[in-house]
Amino acid sequence: MSLKIALAQINLVVGDIARNRQKIIDTAIEARDHLGADLCVFPELTITGYPPEDLLFRPDFIATAQQAIHEIAQQTLGIDVVVGFPESSPEGLYNSAAVLRDGKIFCRYRKQALPNYGVFDEQRYFLAGDKVNLFSIKDTLLALTICEDVWRPEILFANRRAGAEIILTLNASPFHAGKMAQRENIVCEAVQSAGVSLVYVNLVGGQDELVFDGASFVVDQQGEIVLRAAEFQEQLALIEFDGVRPKASECAPFYNDIPSIYQALVLGIRDYVGKNGFQGALLGLSGGVDSALVLVLAVDALGADKVEAVLMPSRYTQVMSNDDAISETEALGVKYHIIPISPAVNAFSDMLAEVFSGAQQDTTEENIQARCRGVIMMALSNKQGKILLTTGNKSEMSVGYATLYGDMAGGFAPIKDVPKLLVYQLSHYRNSLAPVIPERVLTRAPSAELAPNQVDADSLPPYENLDPILERYIELDQSAAEIIAAGFKTEEVQRAISLVDRNEYKRRQAPPGIKITTRAFGRDRRYPITSGYRGWPPKGVSD
Amino acid sequence: MSLKIALAQINLVVGDIARNRQKIIDTAIEARDHLGADLCVFPELTITGYPPEDLLFRPDFIATAQQAIHEIAQQTLGIDVVVGFPESSPEGLYNSAAVLRDGKIFCRYRKQALPNYGVFDEQRYFLAGDKVNLFSIKDTLLALTICEDVWRPEILFANRRAGAEIILTLNASPFHAGKMAQRENIVCEAVQSAGVSLVYVNLVGGQDELVFDGASFVVDQQGEIVLRAAEFQEQLALIEFDGVRPKASECAPFYNDIPSIYQALVLGIRDYVGKNGFQGALLGLSGGVDSALVLVLAVDALGADKVEAVLMPSRYTQVMSNDDAISETEALGVKYHIIPISPAVNAFSDMLAEVFSGAQQDTTEENIQARCRGVIMMALSNKQGKILLTTGNKSEMSVGYATLYGDMAGGFAPIKDVPKLLVYQLSHYRNSLAPVIPERVLTRAPSAELAPNQVDADSLPPYENLDPILERYIELDQSAAEIIAAGFKTEEVQRAISLVDRNEYKRRQAPPGIKITTRAFGRDRRYPITSGYRGWPPKGVSD
Repeated sequence: MSLKIALAQINLVVGDIARNRQKIIDTAIEARDHLGADLCVFPELTITGYPPEDLLFRPDFIATAQQAIHEIAQQTLGIDVVVGFPESSPEGLYNSAAVLRDGKIFCRYRKQALPNYGVFDEQRYFLAGDKVNLFSIKDTLLALTICEDVWRPEILFANRRAGAEIILTLNASPFHAGKMAQRENIVCEAVQSAGVSLVYVNLVGGQDELVFDGASFVVDQQGEIVLRAAEFQEQLALIEFDGVRPKASECAPFYNDIPSIYQALVLGIRDYVGKNGFQGALLGLSGGVDSALVLVLAVDALGADKVEAVLMPSRYTQVMSNDDAISETEALGVKYHIIPISPAVNAFSDMLAEVFSGAQQDTTEENIQARCRGVIMMALSNKQGKILLTTGNKSEMSVGYATLYGDMAGGFAPIKDVPKLLVYQLSHYRNSLAPVIPERVLTRAPSAELAPNQVDADSLPPYENLDPILERYIELDQSAAEIIAAGFKTEEVQRAISLVDRNEYKRRQAPPGIKITTRAFGRDRRYPITSGYRGWPPKGVSD
Repeated sequence: MSLKIALAQINLVVGDIARNRQKIIDTAIEARDHLGADLCVFPELTITGYPPEDLLFRPDFIATAQQAIHEIAQQTLGIDVVVGFPESSPEGLYNSAAVLRDGKIFCRYRKQALPNYGVFDEQRYFLAGDKVNLFSIKDTLLALTICEDVWRPEILFANRRAGAEIILTLNASPFHAGKMAQRENIVCEAVQSAGVSLVYVNLVGGQDELVFDGASFVVDQQGEIVLRAAEFQEQLALIEFDGVRPKASECAPFYNDIPSIYQALVLGIRDYVGKNGFQGALLGLSGGVDSALVLVLAVDALGADKVEAVLMPSRYTQVMSNDDAISETEALGVKYHIIPISPAVNAFSDMLAEVFSGAQQDTTEENIQARCRGVIMMALSNKQGKILLTTGNKSEMSVGYATLYGDMAGGFAPIKDVPKLLVYQLSHYRNSLAPVIPERVLTRAPSAELAPNQVDADSLPPYENLDPILERYIELDQSAAEIIAAGFKTEEVQRAISLVDRNEYKRRQAPPGIKITTRAFGRDRRYPITSGYRGWPPKGVSD
């Protein structure tokens, strides 16, 4: 007798319990009526979305979520529904999954492994469960697990020992480059050791700094993937079991680094803009590669008609910058405005002349230009209800090569976790689909154009060296001594990490952006601003 | 034979291991040579400062910290030194305390209770210890505990059963209003049940959003406080034990709400500015009560010669606002500048005329004024190396009554956790010491002065109602229904919590400020920006 399980890889809205509830009901009914599924499995904390963060401290929120679970049970008769929800109990809150059957909660499971690293704070909210919990359907014994649980082989083994034949896993596993391979490798290896089949259902969609990539899958007892859902889109997939053996089904292609990152950025933008109710997006287009990439990402996410570009030339802006910016808007069919900034810059210059009399020109004057652009962009954003996208990349965010309240102003920073070299790779990739970014933007030397003939290389190591130094220092926690030992130039290492150390205050006020690396700025990396730690000189104790 | 224990209530710098190490050595030697102490006890994680946050993930940082412990041991012969440090082990990191004796680590203890709520993330970094560890000195058995441990009576009882006669506690317990009473009550009650004496040493000083208030104390076996160190300042206090009974010693006065909060703000400003190496501070002075209070706080923290005020009148600024602002600078002896903003406002108005043609005036134009002020203040800050202090209060931060990159621009927001009514109380308190804030500032209706005859009450409920509604919604997690049931007007509750719900994005980009309530914005309260949760209407599920 065959068992049919639907994998409901859906996009939820954190906190919007009414909407999530309806979506769960509609999806379960579709699985029942159109796919003939016996069981429909949803992602982790389905009813609240993930991560609900401190909303979990609100008793009214928890009560509403529990109430919604009962409503779902009553409206999905004829199919077993497996949903995630925050379960309150006298001793505290659990991250739980419930099997809904015949209008009631038939079985429930409490997550045992609570991640409290990286972007995760689950021990802030939840108590850990300590029991396996099996249920049967069509004479097959199924076990429930939640996300981090299946990264711990001992939990799979315990389920196997208890008699589980198929393990269901509800997940909210966020994307970073390479994560899909890591996830499949770890789970397949554990499943193979345990000798059970496993159905892995992942969330899809953007939530603040995170993108959940979907790519749900089914593994058989030999550790082979027999079904894989698409990345970055909703999908209701069906797996049929012949006894406890899953039949081979459709497998979406295995991920490919650059296209996956590109799609993650598109989905992250689309969901941040859409779920926050903006009318569209706008951005300052400088003729440089960063804003060029953000523009095409925004167009791919929202459609050309929802995006506006603003050119804000100054006396230092080269003609080719404007020309290139305009070509891209034309290639994409995006509306643009040109608003030269000199009237405002001159006004501030006059207003400050007296207090600045006698002082040397320095970065203050460069910052004023960037901040005049910030004022213009925010005025347009406020007037139109469109979100301002910030165009800074991770290399800049790392070393503070950006002006707070200037080019850092904005509601969302799509590429803030994308290092400069990867900005170029993504741009070339997008141009390979259809050429939209002018070739010159990809070949000329990067410049902030805030002073005469300025180029980034005047104040920063070349990106070919800077990016790997930053990766080692920020993502891998390597010391200066280790980075130098790996072959990087002493003075470039010193320059890079000294800048990282002293720019935490800027990053703290930066808009959120999309995590695509193993460690993004934001919830993922929590550094003190006030800090005497200096990565340079190499020995930590200065004697 | 009497035992003398020194309580080293000192101010450390997070991450500055070399400086902390030297301070520990100097303090221990002073305790040995001037106080004749047998033992000197320091605060939690002494060597790194608290909280070191993700610096704890850096292997070079941990290695340097452990190395420093050995150096301290070798340079403090002749006295037992109890210090806190991050202890690496093959299985992971512990939050540990060590007794240093005769140049070596004589005894060590691993913290058992790891707080992971509020501002604390200790389970992100540390494994929990599971053992008591006693050591003897002059025939007395002493136990080590760390901070949260003593909030768990079972840990005190376990130490008592193991034979401990005196319990030493290393703490980094941050301030909020009423915390000192809470702390003493809980500890005294536990100590009384366990029947041991306890020496409680707390950290003092500001660290980003936190102020550690000191107020270290000693409790005898009857649960009576026999020594209390001062709040908000460094102190090396000595307690003498006659056998296991501590002799009554000097007790600093018990806290008093308003003066304690005032001192917390002063110390928070002084340490943020000082530890981050700024030359001084500046702020925009509007003639309103918020900036009036921040100015006098800054002067009390840094001295009048380190503080500058800037008046930036617009066409909507009333003459009395300027007059009152100038009177305060004169009363305090603070330098001020007057920079009218109309040239910049007019420039932006002209620059935007074409794209805005046909559009209605709205808050966009108000925001442009606030942002012009932001550009001016940041230009002065950049040019002089002085930090810009932001003057928004908690009521404004809660409801988003502030302009991002405008009046919200700045490096530090001293009163961002101070509700408006408390701003008045603190101002009256400071004037009671010496009148510096003009009376009219305290009596006229609050106004942002961004439009003709504007007052806060046009768009917000009166603060007498708003502040308690916000406290219930934000600090106590009450639902709209509960707040209305407590007697507040439905429409005011609706207005207040709807504004709180939709302004998370502004708070996320706000500068850090000093926590003085049980829940501050920042590390203490982690809400999603993208969120479908709405505290209004009262029922969470909208059908």
